[in-house]
Amino acid sequence: MDALVLEQKRELSLRDFPIEREERLGAHDVRIRLHTVGICGSDVHYYTDGKIGPFVVNAPMILGHEASGTIIETGSEVTNLKPGDRVCMEPGIPDPNSRATRLGMYNVDPAVRFWATPPVHGILRPECVHPANFTFKLPDNVSFAEGAMVEPLAVGVHAATKARIKPGDVALVMGAGPIGLVTALSALAAGCARVFITDLDDAKLEIAESLGPITPINVTSEDFAKRILAETDGWGVEVVFEATGSPRAAAAVFEALCPGGCVVIIGGQSAPIAYDAGAAMVREARVENIFRYAHVFPRCVGMLASGAIDVKPLITRRFEFKDSVRAFEIAASAPKGDVKMQIELPQ
Amino acid sequence: MDALVLEQKRELSLRDFPIEREERLGAHDVRIRLHTVGICGSDVHYYTDGKIGPFVVNAPMILGHEASGTIIETGSEVTNLKPGDRVCMEPGIPDPNSRATRLGMYNVDPAVRFWATPPVHGILRPECVHPANFTFKLPDNVSFAEGAMVEPLAVGVHAATKARIKPGDVALVMGAGPIGLVTALSALAAGCARVFITDLDDAKLEIAESLGPITPINVTSEDFAKRILAETDGWGVEVVFEATGSPRAAAAVFEALCPGGCVVIIGGQSAPIAYDAGAAMVREARVENIFRYAHVFPRCVGMLASGAIDVKPLITRRFEFKDSVRAFEIAASAPKGDVKMQIELPQ
Amino acid sequence: MDALVLEQKRELSLRDFPIEREERLGAHDVRIRLHTVGICGSDVHYYTDGKIGPFVVNAPMILGHEASGTIIETGSEVTNLKPGDRVCMEPGIPDPNSRATRLGMYNVDPAVRFWATPPVHGILRPECVHPANFTFKLPDNVSFAEGAMVEPLAVGVHAATKARIKPGDVALVMGAGPIGLVTALSALAAGCARVFITDLDDAKLEIAESLGPITPINVTSEDFAKRILAETDGWGVEVVFEATGSPRAAAAVFEALCPGGCVVIIGGQSAPIAYDAGAAMVREARVENIFRYAHVFPRCVGMLASGAIDVKPLITRRFEFKDSVRAFEIAASAPKGDVKMQIELPQ
Amino acid sequence: MDALVLEQKRELSLRDFPIEREERLGAHDVRIRLHTVGICGSDVHYYTDGKIGPFVVNAPMILGHEASGTIIETGSEVTNLKPGDRVCMEPGIPDPNSRATRLGMYNVDPAVRFWATPPVHGILRPECVHPANFTFKLPDNVSFAEGAMVEPLAVGVHAATKARIKPGDVALVMGAGPIGLVTALSALAAGCARVFITDLDDAKLEIAESLGPITPINVTSEDFAKRILAETDGWGVEVVFEATGSPRAAAAVFEALCPGGCVVIIGGQSAPIAYDAGAAMVREARVENIFRYAHVFPRCVGMLASGAIDVKPLITRRFEFKDSVRAFEIAASAPKGDVKMQIELPQ
Repeated sequence: MDALVLEQKRELSLRDFPIEREERLGAHDVRIRLHTVGICGSDVHYYTDGKIGPFVVNAPMILGHEASGTIIETGSEVTNLKPGDRVCMEPGIPDPNSRATRLGMYNVDPAVRFWATPPVHGILRPECVHPANFTFKLPDNVSFAEGAMVEPLAVGVHAATKARIKPGDVALVMGAGPIGLVTALSALAAGCARVFITDLDDAKLEIAESLGPITPINVTSEDFAKRILAETDGWGVEVVFEATGSPRAAAAVFEALCPGGCVVIIGGQSAPIAYDAGAAMVREARVENIFRYAHVFPRCVGMLASGAIDVKPLITRRFEFKDSVRAFEIAASAPKGDVKMQIELPQ
Repeated sequence: MDALVLEQKRELSLRDFPIEREERLGAHDVRIRLHTVGICGSDVHYYTDGKIGPFVVNAPMILGHEASGTIIETGSEVTNLKPGDRVCMEPGIPDPNSRATRLGMYNVDPAVRFWATPPVHGILRPECVHPANFTFKLPDNVSFAEGAMVEPLAVGVHAATKARIKPGDVALVMGAGPIGLVTALSALAAGCARVFITDLDDAKLEIAESLGPITPINVTSEDFAKRILAETDGWGVEVVFEATGSPRAAAAVFEALCPGGCVVIIGGQSAPIAYDAGAAMVREARVENIFRYAHVFPRCVGMLASGAIDVKPLITRRFEFKDSVRAFEIAASAPKGDVKMQIELPQ
Repeated sequence: MDALVLEQKRELSLRDFPIEREERLGAHDVRIRLHTVGICGSDVHYYTDGKIGPFVVNAPMILGHEASGTIIETGSEVTNLKPGDRVCMEPGIPDPNSRATRLGMYNVDPAVRFWATPPVHGILRPECVHPANFTFKLPDNVSFAEGAMVEPLAVGVHAATKARIKPGDVALVMGAGPIGLVTALSALAAGCARVFITDLDDAKLEIAESLGPITPINVTSEDFAKRILAETDGWGVEVVFEATGSPRAAAAVFEALCPGGCVVIIGGQSAPIAYDAGAAMVREARVENIFRYAHVFPRCVGMLASGAIDVKPLITRRFEFKDSVRAFEIAASAPKGDVKMQIELPQ
Repeated sequence: MDALVLEQKRELSLRDFPIEREERLGAHDVRIRLHTVGICGSDVHYYTDGKIGPFVVNAPMILGHEASGTIIETGSEVTNLKPGDRVCMEPGIPDPNSRATRLGMYNVDPAVRFWATPPVHGILRPECVHPANFTFKLPDNVSFAEGAMVEPLAVGVHAATKARIKPGDVALVMGAGPIGLVTALSALAAGCARVFITDLDDAKLEIAESLGPITPINVTSEDFAKRILAETDGWGVEVVFEATGSPRAAAAVFEALCPGGCVVIIGGQSAPIAYDAGAAMVREARVENIFRYAHVFPRCVGMLASGAIDVKPLITRRFEFKDSVRAFEIAASAPKGDVKMQIELPQ
C-alpha cells in the first residue's frame, strides 16, 4: 500500500511501503482506514532537517500524526467501537505498565511510542492498527477535517487545563502559529474573558483577531508588556502561554504576568532559556511545563461537537493524497495566511 | 429621599427614608447614584415571609442588592474610580481584620454586612455610599441592566470556579431558576463542553435550552440519571451543581456523577439533607459548598464585556422605580417565563 | 494447602482449599509465600454477619487482605522483584483498561477485584499469585508485621492525601478504632501540628494519646466542638476525618470545622446521613469522600522505613496460623485495649 | 534608646536612635519589648555590601527582622493579645487595600514594608510598634529563642506548602545553609518520607544529617542526580527545593526530578538563570517561585509547640545585645558549624 515516506532529509516519496508488524490486530485494537491527515510543524521539520533534537531519521519513515478515519475492523475485546465508526486517534501509545502511565500521566512515560517520531512510523498511509483506548468516535456533526484537528487542538486544551484557568482570567498567548492559535481558542473555551496574542507577523495576528475576543500585539512595533499592563489597570494577565519556542520570547514570559499568575511553557526549546528568577519570585509565579497531552482527546471532540471551540477557520488548505509531496513543499515554504494544511486520503 | 421599604412581612412602601450613617463618605468610599436594581428571590422571600432562616425583618428595611449606578463622589484616597464612572457593586462588606478576610475568603467572614439582610439596608433608593474596593467600573459596552445582573451571575461564576472545571467537562445543573440559569452559563463559560439542566417546569427548561449547548430534562417525566448515563457512555457528568434548594434534588446529587467527579451545592437548605454517603464513597466524590462569592465581580464584568457570557436573555421585565411595589407583587406571583425582573431608578 | 475458610456466617474452618485459577503465574505476576496477615474489621464482619452491604458470602471464601510475605517466583516480564524479596501487597486488582484506571483512579474502577470481598478469595493461606505492579518490596528495617500494617495505614494516608493538608493544620479525627488511629498518625505525618481525636471509649483514647500530639476527647462526657473551638481561638480545625461510620458522628462533622475547611469521610455508612448543608455552606466546606486508596502503598513503606510513621504500637496481639479460628473469635469479641491482631503463617 | 545601626556599608554602631513615627500606637497595634533577634544572611549582606539587589542602604538603618518579644501595650481595638504575652512577629506589613493583599497574597503586594529592608528600619532595638494581625502569641513551651526562629522557618514552611507535598514524597533540598535546613525540616514535617540534601560543605551536611531522615550529598565529590536516581529505582524525587541562590545549582534543578514533579525556587538570584526547558518539558515539571511567606507564622508556632518541628539544634550561638557588633563580625566570617546566631536584648 502507498505511503508518504521520508526517505531521508529533504527527500519524500509516495510509494509502496510494507508495515508488517502493525498488520496484526490485537484483542484491544482497531483497524482504521485513514481519511484526513494534517501536516504538523514537526512533520515539516523532519522533512527539512531530518531530525528534531535527539530524534533522528536514520531510516525511511512514514510521516503524519494528526489523523481521522473510519473503523474497518475491531479486536475481539473491543466493545465501544464498531466498523463504520468515524474516529480520530491519539498518536502516542504508552507502556501500560510504566509507573507514570499507572499514575495517569502517560504522556511523560519515557517508553511512549509516538507516530512519526523515529523510529515509529506515522499514518500518511491507507490503513493503520491502533489501540481502541486511544481511538475516539466522532459525532455526526464533527467532520473528518475537524477530527484531524483534534491532535493539535489537544496541545492547547492540555495547556489550558494545566494552567487551571479560572473563569474571567485574562491570558497572553505568545506566538500566533498553529499551536498559538489553538491555545488561544482553548484558553477562551477554558474560561478566559479575553486573550492577548503576540507575534512578529501581522498576517498571523489578523487571523488570531478574527477568532474571538483576542487582542493582537505585534512585538516588532509595540512593547507587549506595557500595552497589557495599561489595559489591565497595571495588574497584568493571570496566565501566559509561551507558544513560540523562541528563546527571546521565553526570556520575557514574566513581564506581563500578574502576582500569583501562571506561565505555561508549550514551545520546545533547543537550549536552556534565560529564566528571570527575580521577576518570577516577586510574583510567586507558577510555571507549568507541558509535554503533548493526556486524556484530552475525548474532551476536544466534545467541545468541537457542542461548538465550544470552532477550529474550521484554522484549516486553510486541503490536498489530495497523491499531491502529498507538493503539500509538504508548500508547507515548508511557510506561506503567509496559512494555518493548517491537511491531506485527504482516497476512501 | 424615597426608598422601597419593607415595613413588615407583606407590606411594602415607597417612601422617604433617612439613612444617616451611610451619608458619611470615608476616604476609601464612593457615593453612587443607583440606576438599576434587580429583584432577587431573597428580596421576594423577605417580602412574603418576613425572614430567611435566622435573618428576621424586625424593623423597616430597604430591599435590593443587585445594583448598578454612577459614581457621583469619591473619597480622598480613591484613585481607581471617578465621578461619572458607571459601576456595579458587591453587596457584602466584610471586616478587613477578620481571619477569613485576611486569608482571602471574605465571603465566609461571619462579620460581613450584606445589603438587604436584616438589619442592613438594601439599595432600592436614589443613592448609597460604598467602599471603592467593592465597586467595579463597567466598560461602555456593558449596560446598567447587565451591570445589575453581575450579582446573581457572580453566584454561578463562583460555583463554576470552585468546581475547578476542566475544559471539556460535562455538567449537570439541577434547577432552571435564575441561579440555575446563571450557573449553566457560567459552567459553559468556564470550559464545559455541554450542560444538562433539570427542572419540573417546561417553561424554564425552554429558556435554558435557548442559551447554548444545554440539554433540558424534565424530572417529572424522565429519569435524569438514566438519561445522562445513556448520553455519556455510562460515565456520568464531571460536575453536578445543585441549584434548587430542594431536599429531594439534594438527595440525588451523586446519581449521575462520574468517578472522581465534583458536586457543588449552591441552593440553601432549611434542614439537613439526606446525603448518600455510599454513592459518594464509591465515586470518591468531592463536594464543594458555596456561600455567595468572593473576588469574582471584576471577572464577571470582564466576561460580559468580551461576550464570553451573555445575560441579556435572562432580563425578562423592567419596571420604573415608581412601580416597585407592583413589581414585587408580580415577582411574588412567580409568573411563567420570567427569569429576572429589574427596577430602573430615575436619574 | 490449608486456608482459613469462612464456610458460611459464623462458621470458620482451617482446611485444605484448592485455588486452581490463581496457580497460573502470568508474565507480570509474582508468586508469594504469605508471612503475616492482619485481621481487619471487614473480615470480622463477614464472619459475624456473612455480608457487608451488597457483598454477600454465598460460598466458602478465604478471609484476609492485610498481608506481607516473600517472593518465591516471578513472571517472565517482572524486573523489579526477585525471589527472596520481602514484600507487602495491595489487595485490589483493577481492570487496566477501565476509564477510571487509565485516569489514575483505579480504586474507583467498578471492576476492581479485591481480596476477601465475595466472590474473591483472601490470602489467609500459604501462597498466592499477584501482579508485580501491586506488590511492594519491604526494606530491611520494615518487619513483616509492619508490612502487613501497610494496608490499613494506606487508608489513613490516602485520606490525609485527599485532605491536602498544609503544614501546621490542626485536624480532628472522629473515631479511635484502628482506622481512626492510622488516620491520626497519617494526619500528623502529612503536616498537621496537632490532632484532636474523639471516641466513646477511654481505652481507645488512651492509646491514641500515647501516639503523638493527639488530644483525646470522650464525647460521652464532653462537647467536642466546644472544646476544640476553645482551644483554637474560636477558629476550629482545618480538617475533620470521619472514621466512625456512625450516622451520629457524620451528622456533626461541620461543627468544629473552620471557614474554608475540609471534611474527609472515611467510614462507610449503611444509609444516607444527615448532612448539615447550612453549616457546610457558611464555612464553604469541602467534603472529600474516599474509597480505599490508590498509589499510596510505596509511600507508606517509605514512611515506615524512615520513621515518619510508626505503626508498631498498634499491633497489640499476634497468633499462629493454626490458631486463626480462635483469633477471629477473640477479634469478634472486640477486646478492650486491642487495636490490630495479626496472624503469622508457617514459613 | 539604643539600637544596632548600619551607618553605611561595613560600619555598624550600637547607639541611640530616634524612631519617631513608630512610637504612635494605632488602634490595631501592639507595642513590644524585643527579647531575641536572629541574624539573617540578608542582615549580614547589608552589612558587608550595603545593598541587596535594588535595595540600597542610603541612610543609617537599624538591622534585624527575626524577632520575639513581650507585649507591653495594646491598641484600643486589639482583643487577641494583652500585655505580658510572649510573641513573635512577622516582619512585613502589607497595604491592606492592595489587590494582592485582598486576594490573600499579601507577600507579593509591591507596597509591603519589610523590616530592615531600606528604607524601613529593623528591630535590633528595645521596643517596636507592630500591627496585632502580624504578631503571634507563643505558648509556654516555645522559648523566645525558638520564637525568633519562626521567621526563617516560615520560609521553609511556605516553600513546603507551595510544593503541595503529599505524604510519602521524597524531596531534594539544594543547599544546607540556614534556609536549606529549615526547608528540609519543613519538608519532613509536611509529609516527606525522606529528604536528600546537597552542599559543598561537609560541616553543613553533617548538621543536616543529624536532623532526621536526611541523606547528605556533597556535590564536590558525588553526582547528586545519579545517586538519587539509584536510590529511587530510577524514578527521582517528587520535590526539589533550590535554596542555594547559586546559578549553577539552579541550572540542575530538573536532573533528579521525577515525572510530574515540582521544583520550588527559594534562593534569590541576581541574574537570569539557565533553565533547562527540555528537561522540564519531558517531566511536565511544575515550578513554584516563592517570595518570603504568607499566613504561615501561626502554623510555625503550632508546629514548634507540638514538636512537629524542632529548630533548637539550629541555634548554634547566642550573644548579648551589647556584643551585637561583634556578633555581626563573626557572622560575616561565616564560621564552620554555625547555623543561626541570635542576639538577646536586655529585659
